[in-house]
Amino acid sequence: MYRTHTCGELRSTHVGEIVEIAGWVERIRDLGGIKFIILRDRYGIVQVVVTPESEAYSPALEIGREWVIKVKGVVKKRPEETITETPTGEIEVYAENLEILSKAALPPFYPGEKVSEDLKLKYRYIDLRSENMRRNIVLRHKMAQAAREFLNSHGFIEIETPDLTKSTPEGARDFLVPSRLQKGKFYALPQSPQLFKQLLMVAGFDKYYQFARCFRDEDLRADRQPEFTQIDIEMSFVEMEDILEIMEKFVKYVYSKVGIELPEKFDRLTYDEVMEKYGSDKPDRRIGMELTDFTDYFKNTDFKIIRNIIDNGGSVKGFVAKIPISRKIASEYEEVVKESGLGGLLWFKVEKVVVSPTAKFLGDEYKKISEDFALEEGEVVLIAAHKNREILNTALGNLRIKLGKKYFKDLMKGFDAFWVVDFPFLEWDEEENRYVARHHPFTMPHVEDLNKDPAQIKAYAYDMILNGNELGGGSIRIHKKEVQERVFDIIGLSKEEAETKFGFLLEALQYGAPPHGGIAFGFDRMVAIAAGLDNIREVIAFPKTSSGACLLTGAPSRVSNEQLNELSIKIDGGESYENDKS
Amino acid sequence: MYRTHTCGELRSTHVGEIVEIAGWVERIRDLGGIKFIILRDRYGIVQVVVTPESEAYSPALEIGREWVIKVKGVVKKRPEETITETPTGEIEVYAENLEILSKAALPPFYPGEKVSEDLKLKYRYIDLRSENMRRNIVLRHKMAQAAREFLNSHGFIEIETPDLTKSTPEGARDFLVPSRLQKGKFYALPQSPQLFKQLLMVAGFDKYYQFARCFRDEDLRADRQPEFTQIDIEMSFVEMEDILEIMEKFVKYVYSKVGIELPEKFDRLTYDEVMEKYGSDKPDRRIGMELTDFTDYFKNTDFKIIRNIIDNGGSVKGFVAKIPISRKIASEYEEVVKESGLGGLLWFKVEKVVVSPTAKFLGDEYKKISEDFALEEGEVVLIAAHKNREILNTALGNLRIKLGKKYFKDLMKGFDAFWVVDFPFLEWDEEENRYVARHHPFTMPHVEDLNKDPAQIKAYAYDMILNGNELGGGSIRIHKKEVQERVFDIIGLSKEEAETKFGFLLEALQYGAPPHGGIAFGFDRMVAIAAGLDNIREVIAFPKTSSGACLLTGAPSRVSNEQLNELSIKIDGGESYENDKS
Repeated sequence: MYRTHTCGELRSTHVGEIVEIAGWVERIRDLGGIKFIILRDRYGIVQVVVTPESEAYSPALEIGREWVIKVKGVVKKRPEETITETPTGEIEVYAENLEILSKAALPPFYPGEKVSEDLKLKYRYIDLRSENMRRNIVLRHKMAQAAREFLNSHGFIEIETPDLTKSTPEGARDFLVPSRLQKGKFYALPQSPQLFKQLLMVAGFDKYYQFARCFRDEDLRADRQPEFTQIDIEMSFVEMEDILEIMEKFVKYVYSKVGIELPEKFDRLTYDEVMEKYGSDKPDRRIGMELTDFTDYFKNTDFKIIRNIIDNGGSVKGFVAKIPISRKIASEYEEVVKESGLGGLLWFKVEKVVVSPTAKFLGDEYKKISEDFALEEGEVVLIAAHKNREILNTALGNLRIKLGKKYFKDLMKGFDAFWVVDFPFLEWDEEENRYVARHHPFTMPHVEDLNKDPAQIKAYAYDMILNGNELGGGSIRIHKKEVQERVFDIIGLSKEEAETKFGFLLEALQYGAPPHGGIAFGFDRMVAIAAGLDNIREVIAFPKTSSGACLLTGAPSRVSNEQLNELSIKIDGGESYENDKS
Repeated sequence: MYRTHTCGELRSTHVGEIVEIAGWVERIRDLGGIKFIILRDRYGIVQVVVTPESEAYSPALEIGREWVIKVKGVVKKRPEETITETPTGEIEVYAENLEILSKAALPPFYPGEKVSEDLKLKYRYIDLRSENMRRNIVLRHKMAQAAREFLNSHGFIEIETPDLTKSTPEGARDFLVPSRLQKGKFYALPQSPQLFKQLLMVAGFDKYYQFARCFRDEDLRADRQPEFTQIDIEMSFVEMEDILEIMEKFVKYVYSKVGIELPEKFDRLTYDEVMEKYGSDKPDRRIGMELTDFTDYFKNTDFKIIRNIIDNGGSVKGFVAKIPISRKIASEYEEVVKESGLGGLLWFKVEKVVVSPTAKFLGDEYKKISEDFALEEGEVVLIAAHKNREILNTALGNLRIKLGKKYFKDLMKGFDAFWVVDFPFLEWDEEENRYVARHHPFTMPHVEDLNKDPAQIKAYAYDMILNGNELGGGSIRIHKKEVQERVFDIIGLSKEEAETKFGFLLEALQYGAPPHGGIAFGFDRMVAIAAGLDNIREVIAFPKTSSGACLLTGAPSRVSNEQLNELSIKIDGGESYENDKS
């Protein structure tokens, strides 16, 4: 062993002891010929003193920042005036001996230094030495263990499911893995262990969980990773309410173990409610600015655009916000709703009189709204209209969250957690020109809705929302073959396709499947929220960039022709490593 | 909730209570018009009684084995003469109400029934309902949690490393994953998180672990899986002895939590010792039959083959075993050593006189051996010779273990755990005609050996052996760039190749890498041994066959041309799903 103690654990109780410590040189100073070395390890930092009389002096002259050294010395109390508030701040170690374990070249940056994210990712092992990254990774560990603690003590058992599985793309794209032993065939990496966890319920495992690596080959957005970790959970013989209840406890437990208190009881909001109030299925309620239906105020207007929309059965909605406004600023806001499919944005500001570019057309309506809502001076009302209420809600919701992030960051503190329930079962896919399952096609619909207009079918699906993020989502699953076949039919999956892709599930459902349901939590997001971070890359040890690259190892990379030949695959018009001159 | 209690938890303390239970119909009997249903869930079985007067009677007439039902009823004490020893054997539930939750078609087999492994794998969800499989999966869960408990409480933190990483084939083949966003490039699935865990040490994480999914595209042997789970561990500022000590405690803790006591202290044997004594680097010591060097006994023999071998510097070795023998049987044994590269096998049996086909040539030698080793009547001595001692040892080792499995199964009980240390650093690869790293090229060699004959270099590598299996293996790693470069050179990796494959590691080693080392345990094997099983498939929920197929889902499978086009790859001479008429 290279040490008797860690750097971070030394206290005044150790005074007088001869200790051996090892770590990285965080800083080194020379004061009147005496060397003061701040030595760092995972557990903290400690000050090492090297006097010119010490054997340690000569090697100390050689060392620099980030070198790895071992020090043998005696713990002494610091002079009163040099005591600091840090955990080891009462003592220092007088070096008797100093051994260089590993030299360090001048690094591209020092841990914690502000440099570009790309540089930090390339030298991730240096970045991970920073106080922040160390804290994030340790936080992740603690939350993972807390999650396991809760689940284990509630009778769940952790079961591993395969990563090399079958391609059944539905929604996102699969990552494929060519099989060498079965030429022309492919494994797929799982987008989630959904079907396996359902099969585990059919197998009678009753309460399952897994920290599951999931893979989705999507066009990456800023905060998506091609591989991510999900806490995957499934239970048998439960109804929706049972799942919500225990999962609420679960999440509260995990956060409480890292010092975060979530609300005692999570609200339950329906999908329709959150869409009406916030224009989002994962609203951040902390910023206020609820949407209001103003249609009635405009029912007699002559203002053409509004008139047309109302006559076509459309709605007028808006919200009140205390934000800066002017024609110029308003046009920026208008961009947001236009991108979301609306024609434009109306606004007025409450001052002594109503101020608005459209005041001469809609002055009475604006005045009435101001009075009814008892608006105060300086408040701004943003109004829009559309014949499709969902588009209208979503557009205003997008504007709302944009304004929230811009002007109300100070409200985005604390933790607001609630459930959204009663999701629509289906959604219309413009591209495929058919209904697709909103959650996934194994979700249990309200069976009594199945004969209605497909858009009206509700599902036993639920999302847990934390601070405007979907922390987790789940559903009661279909456990009867007939219902599953009916659903495949509704989403336009032919009998043949259903059989090819999901035949094994349909088969399993006929051999005694219990009622079951579950949920999956995005673990990366769960940790990021606890750490107060927006970027999940900060809580992943070795993340990829938004183009799916690992800047550290250089993955993905070219491979040898020999490897491709063995797999019987060719790059279409491309070149493998051996022929690549670049 | 579909139940107030689980089937397995009901006891005589519940007598008089109205309970709701749910589960699978394990058996159903009719005795004088009364139905007795054995209802099963994960927690156990309980007897349900349905009398003709009960509302439950009519649905009870319909149900069959493996149907899923819910029963409401009252717990009653069983008549004294029908009490059984099972946990719920003192009570039975008188059904007042019986609800069919899920019908079951006639299954291809009932849980626990003896059928082919292929059939069990295809309907894994039925096989997993059996008592044995349930026990195995729960055992696995318990051991995983025990492992985490130990590691967490000893300051290790669990850190996840990527599954989509860079291809650096060394030894086994990589599974490749084509990148869609970076055409012509590939990720590889990790054979182990080796390089990432070393980088985590460079990053200062000090004590790391992970339950890591590992992937190796090998020509599968009976008991290999293309994906498997490894408990991956790494520590900084440690020497070999520190790792052995804590890992011994670790393994003892994990097994003790499932009721298995391993030896208080694990022996340490050198590689040379185990090869000399057992002809294997993972011997099963429980069967005895240690190899002995008999060369001296034959130094004056005229028996030609032996004479030649000894004159060429070879050796004569053998072992004593109480086994059946005859010319015919001996020729079977001889096959084993011939397959391992020897010319033949000599034998003699101790009876009143020495009995052997070669007694007339080697009678004196045989007699001397019998006397010196105080052999008893009926004991057989098996002897072989070869000029290469390693080949000789290995061949006799193979024969030894074969005989052990055939005749001494009764000795293969209990648990024998020990370390093998001082492995050779390199081994000669006939195919590649060069030395390759025996462990992996990041293992620390005995630096003082580096100028010796490559075959003589020893490594700081160690294996933990349990009952003749390599439970885990590890090493101290190289933490200095110069040493790593020297090693790459010794194994014939050019500077350019080293840079392309491992440049990021070499770079990391120059920015302050601490001395470090670690180990990885094969978790599937660890559980299988605890369960007393030879076949790791029995402790994996959804294993693959030896040709890498998942009989349940049909993976690997053909995929659509659209998927391949998006990935810019083509099957070389093969057909994708859409064109496949088969």
